[in-house]
Amino acid sequence: MELWYTEKQTKSFGITAKIKQTLVTEQTAYQQLEMLETEEFGNMLTLDGMVMTTEKDEFVYHEMVAHVPLFTHPCPKRILVVGGGDGGVIREVVKHPEVEKVTLVEIDGRVIEHSKKHLPTIAAAFTHPKVEVIVGDGFMHIAESRDAYDVIMVDSTEPVGPAVKLFEKGFYEGLSRALKEDGLFIAQTDNPWFKADLIRQVFSDVNEIFPITRLYTANVPTYPSGLWTFTMGSKAYDPLEVTAERFHEIETKYYTERLHKAAFVLPKFVEALTKK
Amino acid sequence: MELWYTEKQTKSFGITAKIKQTLVTEQTAYQQLEMLETEEFGNMLTLDGMVMTTEKDEFVYHEMVAHVPLFTHPCPKRILVVGGGDGGVIREVVKHPEVEKVTLVEIDGRVIEHSKKHLPTIAAAFTHPKVEVIVGDGFMHIAESRDAYDVIMVDSTEPVGPAVKLFEKGFYEGLSRALKEDGLFIAQTDNPWFKADLIRQVFSDVNEIFPITRLYTANVPTYPSGLWTFTMGSKAYDPLEVTAERFHEIETKYYTERLHKAAFVLPKFVEALTKK
Repeated sequence: MELWYTEKQTKSFGITAKIKQTLVTEQTAYQQLEMLETEEFGNMLTLDGMVMTTEKDEFVYHEMVAHVPLFTHPCPKRILVVGGGDGGVIREVVKHPEVEKVTLVEIDGRVIEHSKKHLPTIAAAFTHPKVEVIVGDGFMHIAESRDAYDVIMVDSTEPVGPAVKLFEKGFYEGLSRALKEDGLFIAQTDNPWFKADLIRQVFSDVNEIFPITRLYTANVPTYPSGLWTFTMGSKAYDPLEVTAERFHEIETKYYTERLHKAAFVLPKFVEALTKK
Repeated sequence: MELWYTEKQTKSFGITAKIKQTLVTEQTAYQQLEMLETEEFGNMLTLDGMVMTTEKDEFVYHEMVAHVPLFTHPCPKRILVVGGGDGGVIREVVKHPEVEKVTLVEIDGRVIEHSKKHLPTIAAAFTHPKVEVIVGDGFMHIAESRDAYDVIMVDSTEPVGPAVKLFEKGFYEGLSRALKEDGLFIAQTDNPWFKADLIRQVFSDVNEIFPITRLYTANVPTYPSGLWTFTMGSKAYDPLEVTAERFHEIETKYYTERLHKAAFVLPKFVEALTKK
């Protein structure tokens, strides 16, 4: 018997992946968590039936979440990751020597535990000396933080379940207060093919709070449409004006210095989502 | 009963789309042709079980096949399209006023007939006065052509069935002979996630024949991995050196002047396929 995992990415479209075995299936306090061993993408983490990450393509998302904001900020010392319980973003963050401390606030400790066991190459930085892990509510952590971070990365699920409030305007106002006076944040903001309205709304909301608002994309094969977007809100630094001296060599598979800027050059129909 | 179309894009990964109805299912002289009405992507053409185009996302592929080479060449008058029986590429080609004649050579006349009926917004240019349609073997047409074209676009299926020989080095040598002394071609060359070896081989072959060889990408949600590549071989003109004056306004949904160059900035693991 062949086993296939199928994710309906919309009501009428999805992906399907042959699986060797189900490693974990668990209803946590927050969501349905599954860890699947797939043939094509290695081990795959799903939450509430949505692919969060896979061993084969995880590097795209994690590199693009981490390196674009970290090279945009001239000296990112204090970093906050909201979500990101698989550990992929903090693995990339600690590649930057300027970083003094990175705090990860993941609401669901089971994501961290299962990732450590079944996604060891992704969850590789939890024991790094610069990493602090808090199992708690990122939304509350943001609400209680003032002038605390240089860079915040919102590595959430899609806006269902516990992540809904991470896509509301009040959250972006909280991010602004939690950031230092020259801080910046990025958030994953889904895909332009099936979630255009979400991108337009988030961009508009962020643009009312942050003087510099930018949208960039990356190709993640296991995410809906294969084209993922990231929205950046920045108080002072423009990702398009980073100078060559700022970049330094880091080990990557997707991100490059040239791609840093090219990722902000949007297809026309995506660019339209950033206009009023 | 719900009907879903599933394409195995690899042995162990694929896409699945809910369909309202099957409009056509026919074994032509060359391939299995199906036209499906899907809920998410409108009408969809498949050949030998592979998605060729859909009404919702077709503009990406067709614009990027046509406009990147046509704006690279300073005065493209004579154009050849190999394959492209749905008509999407020629629809984009005739937007360029410099074009005097575009010849489409499609091996399977049934693709043209069914596209005219079921994909009318894609097959919109077959009656355009600059368009010549030949139902015949594009490989033979290339072999018999000398110094004939400014730009050739190879809009083939993936390298199975009738398209296998369109991915061999001898074909690229034929393209070189069929092109004028300052001509250039582009070919669709599949995706870097599942077909890295193909891209590497084609790039290497083309690079031995053409002084300027370039790879660019675009996001097509219904194609494997969502990231599609195009290989350009050019005798004289570099797509990265097109000046601002060359561009003129055309109606597009994906292509922009800025994206023309950004599309050549590759993710690191894709860039590696272009190095020896």
